[in-house]
Amino acid sequence: MAEGVRLIEEAEKNEIHPEILLYSDAISDRGFEAITYFQNCEVPIFQVADHLLERVSDTKTSQGVIAVFSIEAKPFSATPSFLLIVDRVRDPGNMGTLLRTARAAGVDGVMILDGSVDVYSPKVVRAGMGAHFSLSIQTVTVEGLLANFDELFVNRPRIIAMVVSEGKPIWSSDLQQSCALVVGGEANGVSNEMLEICDEKITIPMEDDTESLNAGIAGSVALFEVLRQRWQQ
Amino acid sequence: MAEGVRLIEEAEKNEIHPEILLYSDAISDRGFEAITYFQNCEVPIFQVADHLLERVSDTKTSQGVIAVFSIEAKPFSATPSFLLIVDRVRDPGNMGTLLRTARAAGVDGVMILDGSVDVYSPKVVRAGMGAHFSLSIQTVTVEGLLANFDELFVNRPRIIAMVVSEGKPIWSSDLQQSCALVVGGEANGVSNEMLEICDEKITIPMEDDTESLNAGIAGSVALFEVLRQRWQQ
Repeated sequence: MAEGVRLIEEAEKNEIHPEILLYSDAISDRGFEAITYFQNCEVPIFQVADHLLERVSDTKTSQGVIAVFSIEAKPFSATPSFLLIVDRVRDPGNMGTLLRTARAAGVDGVMILDGSVDVYSPKVVRAGMGAHFSLSIQTVTVEGLLANFDELFVNRPRIIAMVVSEGKPIWSSDLQQSCALVVGGEANGVSNEMLEICDEKITIPMEDDTESLNAGIAGSVALFEVLRQRWQQ
Repeated sequence: MAEGVRLIEEAEKNEIHPEILLYSDAISDRGFEAITYFQNCEVPIFQVADHLLERVSDTKTSQGVIAVFSIEAKPFSATPSFLLIVDRVRDPGNMGTLLRTARAAGVDGVMILDGSVDVYSPKVVRAGMGAHFSLSIQTVTVEGLLANFDELFVNRPRIIAMVVSEGKPIWSSDLQQSCALVVGGEANGVSNEMLEICDEKITIPMEDDTESLNAGIAGSVALFEVLRQRWQQ
């Protein structure tokens, strides 16, 4: 379920059609333009009273438009050069932020490990700001991930796990070759299963070692470090 | 006002004493240890019923402890090498995140420009995770900031403003010398007044130029880019 004009526009941009779209008088002119696009695509569209729309809404203000999409996992490239693995991130805001940043950083796909927050829950979709419509996202178990790595990819990317301390400083790690960055959850970081199978552990050096960053921030800093290394290559 | 065990421990760590501290039966053993420290410092401490504590609390669960501090701005160093200027960031979560990241990145001080969210509001304090107790924070107008830059600092730091596009790519900007990084708000970015007086504009390159990052993420990526350049120097 996606609410608000921005998300509907993102769906349009990615040519992803909702199963059903509801709108009310509260919609803006800009929002109505996006609806017009879907009208021409034969999407079932219903105008409803604003107080009814608010009742199905997950937000305080739905901006007068709500659309429901079927979840269709985009296939992964067989030769990815940049993957993000999200390992039990439970905060919807952090999850959405990671997806939004992953898209801006140009990742080829995101694997969400069991135990993470539902990546399609409304809060995550909102915080993702449309990333759900363009990213390849798979929800997998650790076993499924390993199977995928062996079967799906022509060149197995190196698995790089982020740890709070005692990893290789991220700035001296070589992230130019094909890699899959593992970001752990708020409570316990990357799981032991992932730490066991990873090729390298990396840490963001800090001025004050007693500090920590939240999962969304730490992951975002790392995603853009990959981009930087390839940009400066 | 600071709620929860973690924040009280941060106050203890920084030897900052509350004006008053309230706790209830709901407090954990770990929380009680921090209280014991303040008891020995002659801080006024009162045990109250949990339902009363919850009524003054700003959160769903206060963890049984709330403390009130007077706001005392720590003086700035006259020779700072790394400042953060927050220009009209309105979201409390983004503001708190920026402060938390600024501390981890080792900034010498933070200037909050008029029009930003109240940096001492309970939500910002919570998201800051204790950064308020150790950072030098000043709330200033743009005029005040300029006066400070001329009078306060022996070596005027270069003012580097983050812009969404058309700035110098952050990775090729020289951030090794003394600088003040300006992070703009969610809605309109860095204000025109700051853009006029800045020495350089920088942009985080992205894979997809139509994307944007939230203010907390963009600022955090930049703060750690400063750290990286100095670390690799």
